[in-house]
Amino acid sequence: MAIVQCIPNFSEGRDLEKIEKIVQPLRGKEGVKLLNYEADKNYNRLVVTVIGEPNKVKNAVLEAIGVATDLIDMNNHRGQHSRFGATDVCPFIPIKDMTMDDAIDLAKELGNEVASKYNIPVFLYESAATNPERINLATVRKGEYEGLDEKLRDINWMPDFGDAKKHNTAGAIAIGARRPLIAYNINLDTEDIEIASKIAKTIRYSNGGYRFIKAGPVEVPERKMTQVTMNLTDYTKTSMYRAFEAVKMEARRYGVNVIGSEIVGLCPMEALIDVSAYYLGLENFDLNKVLETNLME
Amino acid sequence: MAIVQCIPNFSEGRDLEKIEKIVQPLRGKEGVKLLNYEADKNYNRLVVTVIGEPNKVKNAVLEAIGVATDLIDMNNHRGQHSRFGATDVCPFIPIKDMTMDDAIDLAKELGNEVASKYNIPVFLYESAATNPERINLATVRKGEYEGLDEKLRDINWMPDFGDAKKHNTAGAIAIGARRPLIAYNINLDTEDIEIASKIAKTIRYSNGGYRFIKAGPVEVPERKMTQVTMNLTDYTKTSMYRAFEAVKMEARRYGVNVIGSEIVGLCPMEALIDVSAYYLGLENFDLNKVLETNLME
Repeated sequence: MAIVQCIPNFSEGRDLEKIEKIVQPLRGKEGVKLLNYEADKNYNRLVVTVIGEPNKVKNAVLEAIGVATDLIDMNNHRGQHSRFGATDVCPFIPIKDMTMDDAIDLAKELGNEVASKYNIPVFLYESAATNPERINLATVRKGEYEGLDEKLRDINWMPDFGDAKKHNTAGAIAIGARRPLIAYNINLDTEDIEIASKIAKTIRYSNGGYRFIKAGPVEVPERKMTQVTMNLTDYTKTSMYRAFEAVKMEARRYGVNVIGSEIVGLCPMEALIDVSAYYLGLENFDLNKVLETNLME
Repeated sequence: MAIVQCIPNFSEGRDLEKIEKIVQPLRGKEGVKLLNYEADKNYNRLVVTVIGEPNKVKNAVLEAIGVATDLIDMNNHRGQHSRFGATDVCPFIPIKDMTMDDAIDLAKELGNEVASKYNIPVFLYESAATNPERINLATVRKGEYEGLDEKLRDINWMPDFGDAKKHNTAGAIAIGARRPLIAYNINLDTEDIEIASKIAKTIRYSNGGYRFIKAGPVEVPERKMTQVTMNLTDYTKTSMYRAFEAVKMEARRYGVNVIGSEIVGLCPMEALIDVSAYYLGLENFDLNKVLETNLME
């Protein structure tokens, strides 16, 4: 049976009542499992993770997008995270018995429905992108909600679905398909954000680092530390241990120590098991030797 | 749905035709999955791993024991591994939706059936043991096949099922229930078996080491190395990384390096993920953050 993961991000991270209403359509539906939702007050953003049967997940997410469209007014939205819509971004990730092409089809179906049902312009991104300019979410979202009118006047930024006109309260939405991504943060025993920033630059692709690492610096003042915050966009090619060792190695230059790390949201088993296989120097090991691999259909 | 794992060990590691016949009843049965079977020529022993629905697994294993009883004559059996029966040992491990008590019940049912159907004396061991003397398999098997007549004359070694008389070709059988165990070997860049032996002694419980490590030395002449071979009998209390670091630490005394390691048979996901959580210093991590945990019912 095919299983898809979907991680819609909504522009509401503070009003608990609204958050519960947005999540409600994802609860208790047959074939749909709400795994996790985390609201961030500073970001003013809600990240939701659901898995289940592709069509049922798509329909439930379509409902949730409807609720978010009703409840969120982007004209009053302030937060630290860049965004251009009430439902800002909505990626599909193929998990089991489905291909990336299947996930792309699902993204397009949802895009079509969102545009026709809610009158929101839809941009397809990552693997679902219809041209290379639209692969990178940051480029698609550039200008944010406040710049949408101007962006939509540009002939190069015609939406993939819907009219070239922003929704007056919900803005626009980016819908895509992508590989599983690991949100991984490494803690440094320094409060100097400049150091975290310099380390992030050495390891990330955009400045010459590893191909599948996106990275930036974050302050964590309540713990008197900083973080290198990362997206590992293909853990089969850039493993977690490589990111970890690279940060440790660069930190040494500043006399700074790595004091721990954290995974935000879910992480594929394979990525973690690769870390232990590296650390233990395991020979002749593959996922079929993991008991649980044999318990899944 | 309850799932049990069963790992019968048969005293035949050389004759491929016989091996296939023994394994045959474990193939293609609804509710029973043959995961793995490995024959060792030096040991002259076959280790089989099956999982599935408790009763169906038990019935299929009962059949396989019947085949082994017909095919193996212990009077002609020679090998490096200690053994006292054609089917030497048969542990049940509760995997999902069942308790250790359920696994013990299953062991007793199988024991009863083996004794009455095949006339083989049965000893219950580990968690299924009927007295503390019988918990340790090594004690139960002490004297091996050749010492069975004498052992069965001892009033303290009345079998748990069947008459106090060995089967004339199949000997006796130990049936038990236990926690998952990890068969874990660490490779040393020395051919000196004495060093492997000394390291094994420092880390194993019986000589003052970690509570849940059994360990011994093994020669691997074809690779000009030795191994510390281990059973980690409770990986939730003695983790794999602890065994690994302990061996590395002791090896240093002899100027010897750890050059890798291997897992024999299957390994629970939790044990490997604990290793990566240690290595990465993961904060706020638990198994629910592993995607696959959410894919299993």
